[in-house]
Amino acid sequence: MPKDPASPPTQMAREIAEQPAALDRTLSALLPLRGEIASLAKDRRRLLLVARGSSDNAAIYGRYLAEVHAGVAGALAAPSVATLYAARLDLSDTVTICVSQSGSTQEIVETLEWAKRCGAATIAVTNVADSPLAAEADIALITQAGPELAVPATKSYTTQVAALAVAVDALAPVRGVLDAGFAAVPEQAALLLDQGPELDAMVERISATEEVLVSGRGLAFGTTLEVALKLEETCLRPVRGLSYADLKHGPIAVVDHDLVSLLVAGPSGPTLPGLLDLAATVRAKGSTVLGIGGDAGFRAACDLAVPGPDLSELLAPLALPIPAQLLTERLARRLGLDPDAPRGLKKVTQTD
Amino acid sequence: MPKDPASPPTQMAREIAEQPAALDRTLSALLPLRGEIASLAKDRRRLLLVARGSSDNAAIYGRYLAEVHAGVAGALAAPSVATLYAARLDLSDTVTICVSQSGSTQEIVETLEWAKRCGAATIAVTNVADSPLAAEADIALITQAGPELAVPATKSYTTQVAALAVAVDALAPVRGVLDAGFAAVPEQAALLLDQGPELDAMVERISATEEVLVSGRGLAFGTTLEVALKLEETCLRPVRGLSYADLKHGPIAVVDHDLVSLLVAGPSGPTLPGLLDLAATVRAKGSTVLGIGGDAGFRAACDLAVPGPDLSELLAPLALPIPAQLLTERLARRLGLDPDAPRGLKKVTQTD
Repeated sequence: MPKDPASPPTQMAREIAEQPAALDRTLSALLPLRGEIASLAKDRRRLLLVARGSSDNAAIYGRYLAEVHAGVAGALAAPSVATLYAARLDLSDTVTICVSQSGSTQEIVETLEWAKRCGAATIAVTNVADSPLAAEADIALITQAGPELAVPATKSYTTQVAALAVAVDALAPVRGVLDAGFAAVPEQAALLLDQGPELDAMVERISATEEVLVSGRGLAFGTTLEVALKLEETCLRPVRGLSYADLKHGPIAVVDHDLVSLLVAGPSGPTLPGLLDLAATVRAKGSTVLGIGGDAGFRAACDLAVPGPDLSELLAPLALPIPAQLLTERLARRLGLDPDAPRGLKKVTQTD
Repeated sequence: MPKDPASPPTQMAREIAEQPAALDRTLSALLPLRGEIASLAKDRRRLLLVARGSSDNAAIYGRYLAEVHAGVAGALAAPSVATLYAARLDLSDTVTICVSQSGSTQEIVETLEWAKRCGAATIAVTNVADSPLAAEADIALITQAGPELAVPATKSYTTQVAALAVAVDALAPVRGVLDAGFAAVPEQAALLLDQGPELDAMVERISATEEVLVSGRGLAFGTTLEVALKLEETCLRPVRGLSYADLKHGPIAVVDHDLVSLLVAGPSGPTLPGLLDLAATVRAKGSTVLGIGGDAGFRAACDLAVPGPDLSELLAPLALPIPAQLLTERLARRLGLDPDAPRGLKKVTQTD
């Protein structure tokens, strides 16, 4: 049932608000495991990430962080190679991290078993301690989101991102450089819960269009895809997430005044000049430009924008989704939809 | 200028029709290089593919083929890791294949140079022999598409796919099992140029909707994404390509009777049962289901369908795009658009 503004908060809104505590619990539980992870990964120089849906967006962040921060080459698995084609690969040089909120998606469990048969060391990232995925893995990193009842993943997503940040940091040659950042995450997440009228103006603007495109790049690319998926599955309108480099290869052709562009950026880093350029390009084609995150210059280049967390580019993705989650929840209500239970989706998706 | 049916063929139509000869020339030129490729790849157990746009869709095929056929673990590079973050990775166990029609996209050339500095052996796949990409690579595989003047890539795409099939076959422990298939490709491509009224009926159906979703999986997944990109950039409507596994994680929520689903499949293989299941699922939600490829059972499960090539699942992607290219070219004309020069796109895209 759609909620009106006088109703009690939706389940999704409550779960969004639980994130500072969930992130704090998750980081406190997992940061001490970095030594154990480093031992498991010893002499293994490759990272293979396995996930679907929101978890896949978290995994994409893990891949960028592995290459940029830890100097470890990463890849996203193509699960059908394991589950349908049963390919035999030599993964004896590989650490595999399998990410699943429920820990019971059959495809992900099967791919972990396959990776193990191929010689990989295995790590599970899951919110359910007694799940098959946790049982099968060499090390289980249990996110401390608590039960998540709304269908759209919010606190289970950001705690997955936190778990991946911890796991990747354990692979870095030098540890500790991120520790001050990790400590600041819960407070930064809490600050983002308090949004003013700018976010409501963004909700109004998106509610007036049928076409939304979400773009970002690099360390914020996983967040970009997650924002797009959340808007689409919760608000039932087609939304695409694209790197701005891929956007220029073809899809830019469909940008016009009917389309709202939502740009997602970390607070600093080498992707910001390109995003500024993209904002100018799509605005010149008539698109309204909305922004989440970035620096003051980025936000000034947008028609409407809200800040992200005051964290380094490496750790910003642990809290950067929060303004977009709030936007999604408000947009669903604005459209007369129930944010907690979008049409046609179950909490645990089974794929083969 | 839009062409009417009495006009001479568009440039895109002419280039689509040149594919049997272009594939024949490309395979004849490149198959003899497999020994040289195998020597370069000796003692390297990883494949890293670098590309954007249509070339990226060819690269995705290369990755699946590497894992399923050659038993070599593959990954798609995240170019920003090289060009923006300048990450230092150890790629001494890696063969990198960089794919660019023009061979002059700066981002791809820079990523090849970066891979070389990280210790990788490098292969270029390009249509331009005297391009910077060809000059920088240890081995240049020059596709023999000839000049491509229409903006949408057609013959340059299928010849890239052919070059990747050759390169990956060179990495396989046993060579020769694909040789009969390679020999059959030009004739199979020629047969697909002759389409009857079924394809025109598919054009009519897509012309009547604003929402198109393209889905496929596994070895045909790269083709799936290429079909989606081609439809979108040529016909100026948002089109998404999704694996059917990813589709079930969220985007299935937006499938309804307004949406046309275009399913793309190889002639056999372990993804077909899932595609049949998907056809039933989206039809139950009211979507019209169109099919390209598959077997007789798959096509019977679609509202309208045309066959793909009579090639193994491993090599079908060298010719499977052809019916979709013809569909795209006809759809563009049906919509009063110029297939040769879609709005806002240049032939060579520069990304940083």
